[in-house]
Amino acid sequence: MNVQEYMHGLGHKARRAARQLAGVTSGEKNAALLSIAEALNSARTALEAANAKDLEQGVKNGLDAPLLDRLRLTPAVVDGMVEGLRQVANLPDPCGEITDLSYRPSGIQVGKMRVPLGVVGIIYESRPNVTIDAASLCLKSGNATILRGGSEAIHSNRAIADCIAQGLSEAGLPVDAVQVVETTDRAAVGELITLSEYVDVIVPRGGKSLIERVSRDATVAVIKHLDGICHVYVDDKADLKKAFDIALNAKTHRYGVCNAMETLLVAEAVAAEVLPELAGAYEEKGVELRGCERTARFISVKPASDEDWATEYLAPVLSIRTVDDMAEAMAHIEQYSSRHTESIVTEDYTRARRFLSEVDSSTVMVNASTRFADGFEFGLGAEIGISTDKIHARGPVGLLGLTSQKWIVLGDGHIRQ
Amino acid sequence: MNVQEYMHGLGHKARRAARQLAGVTSGEKNAALLSIAEALNSARTALEAANAKDLEQGVKNGLDAPLLDRLRLTPAVVDGMVEGLRQVANLPDPCGEITDLSYRPSGIQVGKMRVPLGVVGIIYESRPNVTIDAASLCLKSGNATILRGGSEAIHSNRAIADCIAQGLSEAGLPVDAVQVVETTDRAAVGELITLSEYVDVIVPRGGKSLIERVSRDATVAVIKHLDGICHVYVDDKADLKKAFDIALNAKTHRYGVCNAMETLLVAEAVAAEVLPELAGAYEEKGVELRGCERTARFISVKPASDEDWATEYLAPVLSIRTVDDMAEAMAHIEQYSSRHTESIVTEDYTRARRFLSEVDSSTVMVNASTRFADGFEFGLGAEIGISTDKIHARGPVGLLGLTSQKWIVLGDGHIRQ
Repeated sequence: MNVQEYMHGLGHKARRAARQLAGVTSGEKNAALLSIAEALNSARTALEAANAKDLEQGVKNGLDAPLLDRLRLTPAVVDGMVEGLRQVANLPDPCGEITDLSYRPSGIQVGKMRVPLGVVGIIYESRPNVTIDAASLCLKSGNATILRGGSEAIHSNRAIADCIAQGLSEAGLPVDAVQVVETTDRAAVGELITLSEYVDVIVPRGGKSLIERVSRDATVAVIKHLDGICHVYVDDKADLKKAFDIALNAKTHRYGVCNAMETLLVAEAVAAEVLPELAGAYEEKGVELRGCERTARFISVKPASDEDWATEYLAPVLSIRTVDDMAEAMAHIEQYSSRHTESIVTEDYTRARRFLSEVDSSTVMVNASTRFADGFEFGLGAEIGISTDKIHARGPVGLLGLTSQKWIVLGDGHIRQ
Repeated sequence: MNVQEYMHGLGHKARRAARQLAGVTSGEKNAALLSIAEALNSARTALEAANAKDLEQGVKNGLDAPLLDRLRLTPAVVDGMVEGLRQVANLPDPCGEITDLSYRPSGIQVGKMRVPLGVVGIIYESRPNVTIDAASLCLKSGNATILRGGSEAIHSNRAIADCIAQGLSEAGLPVDAVQVVETTDRAAVGELITLSEYVDVIVPRGGKSLIERVSRDATVAVIKHLDGICHVYVDDKADLKKAFDIALNAKTHRYGVCNAMETLLVAEAVAAEVLPELAGAYEEKGVELRGCERTARFISVKPASDEDWATEYLAPVLSIRTVDDMAEAMAHIEQYSSRHTESIVTEDYTRARRFLSEVDSSTVMVNASTRFADGFEFGLGAEIGISTDKIHARGPVGLLGLTSQKWIVLGDGHIRQ
């Protein structure tokens, strides 16, 4: 089949389903989420068989071990999907909430109503459980979804799609509310991200090259983050015990995550006290240290290049820069940060207040590890991604980020004078 | 000068100014707005002279009368700019507001802080007073602005820019906080809308062709509306007096505005009662009526083509369609609306509730004229435009639409477990 026609067909059906979802109650959406959980739970054998095909093909295609690992639908992964659906069913429904409804001098009442965005396109790579994560959040927030997973997971994704369709149908919801792109043709992505007639927003989840391509070519709005180059600044007024804990946790709690610290900034006045102890702890964890010339006066580091400051290592590597003061730290962040998350460690009230208000990142912290920048930790219940853009959603994006607010006006025959 | 270099230079300076504005207080911003008002008030002779050059050039270039009219900086227009600045100074400052700050089970406090978007690019056509409207809203919301007006107003815009620079400088704010593009080279627009490194959002204000071009070519986010194809649906449960008032007001209060009704939908059961009286009133106002076949059974209309339903007349022309019921009206709106504003006239509670929640437009009304869809009427104090998009700002966009929210986290040495 012609890919363009196929994707337009999906778009058209998604738009129609989105329209139908506008009239669906929270109870009906929750029932569908629970039915999908049941369907998955009962389809473990079919899921395993489908996944085995993908794994076999993956081995044949020479996928490396971590990729095969992410592709694998173990019983624990299926448990996670089932549990995730139940959790999303338990979250409050953001749709329909009316806020700020008040009378204007003209006599009309004006307020805002929270409503779904409409149709959300998700583009993701190997992990098939994203199919359920994304579909459940979009469905709960009243959106129709078009899911485009990696070709290496196509059999698994189709089997999951069958469960979703079964759950939707049992709950009496339109089956087109969640559609999985059935073709592995790469042109499908290009079509999806330019379907502005039918798709309201695209959420790419995957490596940097995928996200760069989607951002560059999309004509539909994109919720994304490219990089997590997060900073911790240890101020000379820091409580050094807190500084030690936070700097260690932010780097070593997990390495391959976007909210891990990639660059540590230390005020020179406390560098001699802070750096040697930290360097020892990092060394114990096997973290490679790169640093500026001033840093090399306190601890042994490889020289950091300008490229280091601009790199998201996603690995046990840390760049360290010794700075004069908070102003220099903020200038460094301004130049190199990817606007994800930055944290200051200080006991100084005025500096904490200034850092919080002036640092231009999605999340700004005082005396806390950057690892907290996460939808679950922030209480969103679930997260579809983390946005480093400023338009629409910023930081961890949960159900609210998948909705919009329209204005409502209640009158009694009112006309403009 | 090379346009690309010139625009990059403006972008770079705007970004630096935006950074400086992050540390500026509400009082300082208000002082700057009032200083600009004073500067304009004192520069009336210079403004008049600059404007005379534009008008002279305009006559030479054969601009038509309405365009020349919009170009003219009459004393009343200058009064309006001065008064507008004072009003914006009086609006509450949205920046820095912290909301939803609460403790999470981990012990951290998580909340949101409202912050400027950063750098806003405004692209507009002939009316030079937009320079002040846009600059004042952007400045109040803490954004740096790059203003690109029409080439036909270049002398007026430069003279206004001088006043802005004087006001900023007197108030001790960076003069680059508001920059007017000094070149009339059309390539400057193409540069501005792709300056993603420096510009956070573009607001185009002008005709449909300008907005279409900007939306198509921009790589920066755009806040815009293309069309205002607004509908009023007169339900068979309508109070017919209210229906008459609203249908007349929505069409005839002003013709050339985006919130004017372009299509009237009438339930067949009341068409015989509603249409003849309305047709008489429209005729009195000189409104040309086009209608579907069913409508032609009740009143004399030109036949409406499919194109009519999709046209924003911005003129004394109205298309009328007689429908079976609300479902058919909603289907018509779904197909032809530009998602700006729709209103239902009904006394039926359930239909009002359903229309409000299911119609997917920026503003949805019950028993009120579409003409109320306006930032001033909604209490925003001022309006930079009306958005028919769902991402970020929707409907009338005031100061809030020029801001974003970042997450803030307050800890006491907290680390992820």
